[in-house]
Amino acid sequence: MDRTERQDLARARGWLATAVAEARAGLAEGGIPIGAALYGPDGTLLGRGHNRRVQDDDPSMHAETAAFRAAGRQRTYRGTTMVTTLSPCWYCSGLVRQFGISRVVIGEAVTFRGGHDWLAAHGVEILVLDDPECIGLLRAFVEDHPALWNEDIGE
Amino acid sequence: MDRTERQDLARARGWLATAVAEARAGLAEGGIPIGAALYGPDGTLLGRGHNRRVQDDDPSMHAETAAFRAAGRQRTYRGTTMVTTLSPCWYCSGLVRQFGISRVVIGEAVTFRGGHDWLAAHGVEILVLDDPECIGLLRAFVEDHPALWNEDIGE
Repeated sequence: MDRTERQDLARARGWLATAVAEARAGLAEGGIPIGAALYGPDGTLLGRGHNRRVQDDDPSMHAETAAFRAAGRQRTYRGTTMVTTLSPCWYCSGLVRQFGISRVVIGEAVTFRGGHDWLAAHGVEILVLDDPECIGLLRAFVEDHPALWNEDIGE
Repeated sequence: MDRTERQDLARARGWLATAVAEARAGLAEGGIPIGAALYGPDGTLLGRGHNRRVQDDDPSMHAETAAFRAAGRQRTYRGTTMVTTLSPCWYCSGLVRQFGISRVVIGEAVTFRGGHDWLAAHGVEILVLDDPECIGLLRAFVEDHPALWNEDIGE
């Protein structure tokens, strides 16, 4: 790993901390602990959010859609990065592809594996961090609330 | 076409009228005229909605996601039908796939062609109605507001 790669990885880990903070906020509200944030090409935080199925009785607010929504209307998503604690499901992968988000940084893809290979095949840069905190946070929740988890992923 | 097929088509056209009414409501509000509705296996209307990018400054509310949201939390989407005035974009196609919505009835796929072939390849039943009213409604809007339209589909 050269210096630029190390810097990129350090930045991605820093951004992931925002998504993890969102996941923890969701958990504290009694919700599903998945968080996300959308960063601009220059590293500006455009929007952040977490899964709100339980809190708002809203099945449409996955972490990524919540962060996307919080970012408001953007003319283009070129150069933006979606950072999420969990591999994006098809719904959120479709969001990334449709709006041309350039890069997805993923905390973990162990508890659930969504459409990130499909995104990579369509030119989206994917970085999976295998973060133990993300794995532990969601795994414990899924073990305690299997029905709620299955509802959230449509299974 | 046998009798059952004729009945299915008549029902689909009836459901499409709900989506068209939503699209017209969106247009009357100054928004992008795309509407959708989610119907249950027994024909119950579960939720309806329209694109709300302009009205709510909300890029996450496409017609299909608005209808899905309006339907609230559902334990399963097996047997449900998403009816939409326009071929679903990747974002909305991902929604259909992730949540296991069984069928998509599409008003038109001429002005925009989204991911409905991909959905069909993954077992979702697709019916494209080639409805002149849907085509006319959106085409006129796109001609008048090309930048807004491109923003809505991330181009």
